[in-house]
Amino acid sequence: MTVLILTCEQDVTADMVVAHLNEAGVPVVRLDPADLPGGVALSGEYVHGGFRGHLSAGGRLVSMSGLRSVWVRRPGVPATRVAEPSAWLTEESSQALYGMLRGAGARWMNHPDAARPARHKPWQLHLAQRSRLPVPATLITTFPQAARDFSERFPDLVVKPVSGAHPQEPSQVVPTSRVAPDADFTDVAYGPTLLQRRIAKRADIRLTVVGDRIFAARKAVAADADPDEVDVRFTTSAEPWRPVEAPPRLADAVHTYLRLAELAYGAFDFAEDSDGIWWFLECNQSGQFGFVEIETGQPIARSVAEWLTDRAPETDAHSDGSVRVAP
Amino acid sequence: MTVLILTCEQDVTADMVVAHLNEAGVPVVRLDPADLPGGVALSGEYVHGGFRGHLSAGGRLVSMSGLRSVWVRRPGVPATRVAEPSAWLTEESSQALYGMLRGAGARWMNHPDAARPARHKPWQLHLAQRSRLPVPATLITTFPQAARDFSERFPDLVVKPVSGAHPQEPSQVVPTSRVAPDADFTDVAYGPTLLQRRIAKRADIRLTVVGDRIFAARKAVAADADPDEVDVRFTTSAEPWRPVEAPPRLADAVHTYLRLAELAYGAFDFAEDSDGIWWFLECNQSGQFGFVEIETGQPIARSVAEWLTDRAPETDAHSDGSVRVAP
Repeated sequence: MTVLILTCEQDVTADMVVAHLNEAGVPVVRLDPADLPGGVALSGEYVHGGFRGHLSAGGRLVSMSGLRSVWVRRPGVPATRVAEPSAWLTEESSQALYGMLRGAGARWMNHPDAARPARHKPWQLHLAQRSRLPVPATLITTFPQAARDFSERFPDLVVKPVSGAHPQEPSQVVPTSRVAPDADFTDVAYGPTLLQRRIAKRADIRLTVVGDRIFAARKAVAADADPDEVDVRFTTSAEPWRPVEAPPRLADAVHTYLRLAELAYGAFDFAEDSDGIWWFLECNQSGQFGFVEIETGQPIARSVAEWLTDRAPETDAHSDGSVRVAP
Repeated sequence: MTVLILTCEQDVTADMVVAHLNEAGVPVVRLDPADLPGGVALSGEYVHGGFRGHLSAGGRLVSMSGLRSVWVRRPGVPATRVAEPSAWLTEESSQALYGMLRGAGARWMNHPDAARPARHKPWQLHLAQRSRLPVPATLITTFPQAARDFSERFPDLVVKPVSGAHPQEPSQVVPTSRVAPDADFTDVAYGPTLLQRRIAKRADIRLTVVGDRIFAARKAVAADADPDEVDVRFTTSAEPWRPVEAPPRLADAVHTYLRLAELAYGAFDFAEDSDGIWWFLECNQSGQFGFVEIETGQPIARSVAEWLTDRAPETDAHSDGSVRVAP
């Protein structure tokens, strides 16, 4: 049984996982959907009530029924490396590839149907509340008056994009930033705005979950840190990421979140306040873990490799026979 | 409790359903996501572990918790009717709207998470096989040799796009067409190709399912019909659509299909062969029903209105509290 990894060519994080799989002697096929059609080819036959499918990449042929698991890491957009790319060919190739893989019966990290909604901030906030994670008061609105009322109740606010994406460069992430006390909220009418009570934090927490394993890391806020620098992704700090134990109740809540979201992998960001409470900021279903592993020595890549290899009893077979979730 | 209809302005089919809802005195809000932000506004607050959200459209304000059901009919793309549209604003508005609606606890026809994969042809074929619907032998491939082998085993073939879309006009549908006996399959390498055994049909069947109700209609193939005209959507025929009884085993299979696909609505196309067998061609989760209702008199719009109104025991509450499916 083979592990299929969908990712782009330059992906050091995938390399780390592949090294573990090779060491364990687990067959791996790694491909970039951008190379379909071309370097990647596929074929699937629906005959006599059954399905027989194959994928070929880098000269290797693998049967769809021989797939143990699919790791959706950083896949390119299908059919973007052909001589004449088009939106139509991308759609055709995407439906052919993901449509067939859906029926392969492999377990997914993460299943595309779960990964897509998991990116929605309002859905994340909903899941976090249902899982009993502490969620800072948040408003998403196009009503200027609602924003004004909210800022009166919660005078210390941050603003972030609903989708997390950058207006000019959708592949970039926009930093979260503080709202000035005298902010004018008129422009809220021209685009949904996410306002959130700022957590005066003494540390950032990155909590990486792989199946049922949790790796928590903590980065203390430096004593001389600028309080306007609220987004750990954009601050330079000499403080290292250090392993930390997740409080048991929080660990339970995180597992609940991933179960509700039907995700096998998630990278959570929390802000730790002066009382030691971890406030939920977001859960990135495809969040990086390389930098945490390097600084903390936590065996995250090995855990991913083990999850992809494992045909464990923790898998949860759906009614249609496909296996989607195994947090 | 209010029914929310997401559709564009000109939508006669939606008008038919709204007429029934008005008649029954059921509150309806109808809006086009293209008008967000602008004519449509929203606001949602996550405070004290709870959520309070509102939508406003056409001067009406509706609470998210007061939504009975959401009908995703023909919604426009969010934020496309603003002064300066952008991919970014569309993403922000889309995530704000659908992200909040996800958490509203309403029942969906159809839930976006179910609707998206339901469009994939390979997934449709998989579901049809699992539901024990008769599926014509089908190949999806980028291997020219696989196409040649298939055409030797099944000499009478049709070809159709994997995604159903038109190369130049993705909003258009491409007709299914016959493959010439001497076809050259070399170009298959440049794009996934769907080949299917042609069913020599004596009628087209359109089977519309609304919750647990089935409406089957049959359009006989005219005696003088051109056998090269295989796609009923593109043929002109004097034969009318007439109501027909669906065979009980097929009706069961169709319900199984929709249950596996987690859809509340589906429009199935079948080809009836000379033995009276209905061969599965496709299931369109947002297929039109107006033309069938007009020709057959089947009360489909009323059934949709009743499904949207009904808080029936057939609903299937998910573990996260959201209600997605009710076939």
